[in-house]
Amino acid sequence: MSQVDELLRNKVSYLADRASDEDIAISTRIRLARNLNGLPFPSAAAPEQFRAAAEAVAEAVERKKLLGGGAFRFDLETLLPLDAEVLFERRLASRELLRRETGAAVHVSGDESLAVMVNEEDHLRIQTLKPGFQLEAAWETIDELDNRLSAELDFAYDETLGYLTACPTNVGTGMRVSVMLHLPGLVLAGQLNQVVQGIAKLGLAVRGIFGEGTDNRGNLYQISNQSTLGESEPEIIARLKRVIEQVITHEKNARSNLLEHDRCKLLDLVGRSYGTLRHSYILSSEEALKTLSGARLGVDMNMFSSLDIHTVNELFVAINPAHLQKLAGRTLQGAERDIFRAQTVRELLRRTGSN
Amino acid sequence: MSQVDELLRNKVSYLADRASDEDIAISTRIRLARNLNGLPFPSAAAPEQFRAAAEAVAEAVERKKLLGGGAFRFDLETLLPLDAEVLFERRLASRELLRRETGAAVHVSGDESLAVMVNEEDHLRIQTLKPGFQLEAAWETIDELDNRLSAELDFAYDETLGYLTACPTNVGTGMRVSVMLHLPGLVLAGQLNQVVQGIAKLGLAVRGIFGEGTDNRGNLYQISNQSTLGESEPEIIARLKRVIEQVITHEKNARSNLLEHDRCKLLDLVGRSYGTLRHSYILSSEEALKTLSGARLGVDMNMFSSLDIHTVNELFVAINPAHLQKLAGRTLQGAERDIFRAQTVRELLRRTGSN
Repeated sequence: MSQVDELLRNKVSYLADRASDEDIAISTRIRLARNLNGLPFPSAAAPEQFRAAAEAVAEAVERKKLLGGGAFRFDLETLLPLDAEVLFERRLASRELLRRETGAAVHVSGDESLAVMVNEEDHLRIQTLKPGFQLEAAWETIDELDNRLSAELDFAYDETLGYLTACPTNVGTGMRVSVMLHLPGLVLAGQLNQVVQGIAKLGLAVRGIFGEGTDNRGNLYQISNQSTLGESEPEIIARLKRVIEQVITHEKNARSNLLEHDRCKLLDLVGRSYGTLRHSYILSSEEALKTLSGARLGVDMNMFSSLDIHTVNELFVAINPAHLQKLAGRTLQGAERDIFRAQTVRELLRRTGSN
Repeated sequence: MSQVDELLRNKVSYLADRASDEDIAISTRIRLARNLNGLPFPSAAAPEQFRAAAEAVAEAVERKKLLGGGAFRFDLETLLPLDAEVLFERRLASRELLRRETGAAVHVSGDESLAVMVNEEDHLRIQTLKPGFQLEAAWETIDELDNRLSAELDFAYDETLGYLTACPTNVGTGMRVSVMLHLPGLVLAGQLNQVVQGIAKLGLAVRGIFGEGTDNRGNLYQISNQSTLGESEPEIIARLKRVIEQVITHEKNARSNLLEHDRCKLLDLVGRSYGTLRHSYILSSEEALKTLSGARLGVDMNMFSSLDIHTVNELFVAINPAHLQKLAGRTLQGAERDIFRAQTVRELLRRTGSN
């Protein structure tokens, strides 16, 4: 059994926690970019320098058990490609990390709420993931981990600029805060573009589910800070918080409006989404995201007695190609995957007793 | 409570019987055109002549209880338009009968398996409806009713031509035999047109669900004889039987082929149909027929443990506009009807315990 298999068997996941505003905010993520003094940035590093960075980080994380008792260490060089994809789909490793040929690694806490990527664009990318909308709690968690790592490692830091990073857009705090929001109400009401434009004017970014451009599969959007310089971490977080609170309010209003003026249309969308998830035998990734979004909206609006939000959250991860193939225990081509995806979703929904 | 309400409350329906080949053949219908000597055909009749024909038929049918104890008599002149539509949707009255302004009536046996339309195109249109594929049984039933009516009424008959009818295409036997077939397999396999062309070459007609042209909603097709002259009734029936047996074989083969080579596609079609019926909140008549066809295919192929063919057959009737409005107890406009249709279907499927 690979370490990734162990991770997947792990029943303790940050996603299972209850959280505030979880009906609209799926998760909160903060990551910090850090580099080690005395070593070139990964983009300019030689193989032995990658290894030196990886060893220094592993030494610090493991000796001091900075990620807790049941932490995992994944060395990308020896990881099967499918296992690496699983880490990507679970948001524990980035595409950039997966592309690195030498010395890339990621340390992950047992509940996956903490991760330290090594030799991505920077020597370290420290991340915390929390369910729902929990900016302050996420900041406390990541700040503490950063402090403990600082005590072990010599981070590149400039009194004027702040933390030094490979890409100038990260210099300063090195912090990227992002909140994943589920915004079907604004999409249905045709108000999303307006909201996105407003957010952009405030210097924040809006991206799709895996951060790629404007891809909005599943009506999932990540809102994050663009600048890392000229503001303290608490200031960045406070600004993001105000904006996201407004977006959440807009989404709630859009949902109430739909419920009041277009109740049947809304119920129909939710019902059909559920019907497709529960009864189809061929399900593409795109349709799965679309219908999961519809089902999640139904759960949020208390339209289901037997389907809970965590089952839906679990499915948002389980429908991804690498997860499906791990579950199947073998490689699945596109058409097979759509069949197995439908089966997986059907069975999970049947097990939860929902009809 | 109107008589139509009583009819609808009637739990005894010919559709509830089990029948041979009911997985593909929905129903068998035979109707005989008969006219009364001494009265002009309805197209040329004066109001008092319509009434004379109606009274003569009513007298014969009712005094001798030719349609059994619990028979109904509907006078179209006094029937509410919605009630008349219900009779049409239940295939107990034709569009032509509904259009007649004077003297039109229909006598219906308690189980709806027998009907005598009066003053349609001909003075009498005697009909029997049986579930499944039962040509001989239908012939025995209608022949007996015809004989008993003949003993009471003086039918226009010519030794050379046979029964005289308003339209020359009915002269002779005055018989139209039609079998309603559900042919989703041939449609999915792209073989339907070929089969229809073959049937047409044999002098038989193929029509949609209510007999209108080539409308094929719900993958339902009626196959019937075109000619009524030059062959005896048993000969017409025997010929039709051979052809329909072949169509049923083709449909079975198409289904087996799909199950063998396109199993998931078939399951997906069935599952999605069911999912839509079970979970949508807005359902058009067209989509209802399409998805009921998919669900019926699933029932036929034993894909459902808790859904039976008679529930599906019942729904094929219940989704029609007049039936929905009777159930609602009020007039429903298009959009309301789609909402109420979805609700009716959802609740019926939930009651049958299927998920």
